[in-house]
Amino acid sequence: MPTLYHSPNSRSSRVIAQLMLMGKLDEVDVVVVDVQRHDGSGGPDPRNPHPEGKVPYLVTDQGQGIRESAAIMMYLDELFGQLLSPAIGAPDRGAYLSWMAYSGGVLDPVLVAAFSGLEHPALAGAYRGMSEVCTALEIALSEGDFLLGASLSVADILLASPFQWAPHLMPDSAIIKSWVERVGRRLDGEAIGAFEAQALSTLNALEDA
Amino acid sequence: MPTLYHSPNSRSSRVIAQLMLMGKLDEVDVVVVDVQRHDGSGGPDPRNPHPEGKVPYLVTDQGQGIRESAAIMMYLDELFGQLLSPAIGAPDRGAYLSWMAYSGGVLDPVLVAAFSGLEHPALAGAYRGMSEVCTALEIALSEGDFLLGASLSVADILLASPFQWAPHLMPDSAIIKSWVERVGRRLDGEAIGAFEAQALSTLNALEDA
Repeated sequence: MPTLYHSPNSRSSRVIAQLMLMGKLDEVDVVVVDVQRHDGSGGPDPRNPHPEGKVPYLVTDQGQGIRESAAIMMYLDELFGQLLSPAIGAPDRGAYLSWMAYSGGVLDPVLVAAFSGLEHPALAGAYRGMSEVCTALEIALSEGDFLLGASLSVADILLASPFQWAPHLMPDSAIIKSWVERVGRRLDGEAIGAFEAQALSTLNALEDA
Repeated sequence: MPTLYHSPNSRSSRVIAQLMLMGKLDEVDVVVVDVQRHDGSGGPDPRNPHPEGKVPYLVTDQGQGIRESAAIMMYLDELFGQLLSPAIGAPDRGAYLSWMAYSGGVLDPVLVAAFSGLEHPALAGAYRGMSEVCTALEIALSEGDFLLGASLSVADILLASPFQWAPHLMPDSAIIKSWVERVGRRLDGEAIGAFEAQALSTLNALEDA
């Protein structure tokens, strides 16, 4: 059974949401760990084998460590039969790979910069900004309910997640807001909330011990 | 036939190197375009359909646009029969996905910051720095000649490329230097150089016209 290192209400929460949607949360061993938070709370957790103390981190049955949300979500989707992604050779495969790479390679740096009020020509040159992110999402979503069209995929869970967790970063775009809500409705918000509350309580108990 | 939008001596050059190694360069229509360069030269090219004027950009036979080097390289590798990557379910699949996501999601922001002398707590918090990149590569390469062990994969071509093109960013690590040289020896440097010289001459002729 693969082991997922997870911290409640963090970048790893989207992996929990994916596993719940696939009905596979009980086929992964979830280990709750602490991480350093933006607000200064938390800190590196010796139980987390991620080389830089981040989450999510997945250790496979073969003992390989997988880092980065996109890679972990693709791996788990493949492991459980590609319930939420186009197979190799399928028409939407290229768009799927593109969005999965865009998440860590463009959206994340743009959001990190926006979140911290950081503006620099090198960042703008490499990643552009929220305006271009907004345009990219709107163009894709003008053709269907989800990034790949009619069906929700792992890409939707991954890319909608920052706007679910940091609504103040949500672009002022009806198309994007409606998509984030649509993705949210497909996920079991109540079950995720209960899981996260339990994870937080586990974490607090570990820290008090 | 897919169309690759390429600019010589840029982030798209590693896609050319991959196609040459696979012997598939003649099965992709390469369109040479201009891009804005770090030194201020060049600029957006109206022939490039990438929404932000960047390269590489790939348009599939189905008319889908794929952005981000990792996605394009994975797609082309899959299109031509996964000559340079582990199949879904293979033991190294997780490590492969992890390195492909790490490239755009960690290595690229760290290099952009290092290249431009940009230091900021938000960037360090999200991506750490060259020291952690160096450690991650060294740990993987301590177990084999390439990132996945004995065999070169698309991940090596992708992740070694920044150090081939910007040797001043090469970490002072014998293990990493030796890996970058090893990857370089597997690629046909002479053929790539000739292709790039021809691409540059095509680009200059277009701009003079």
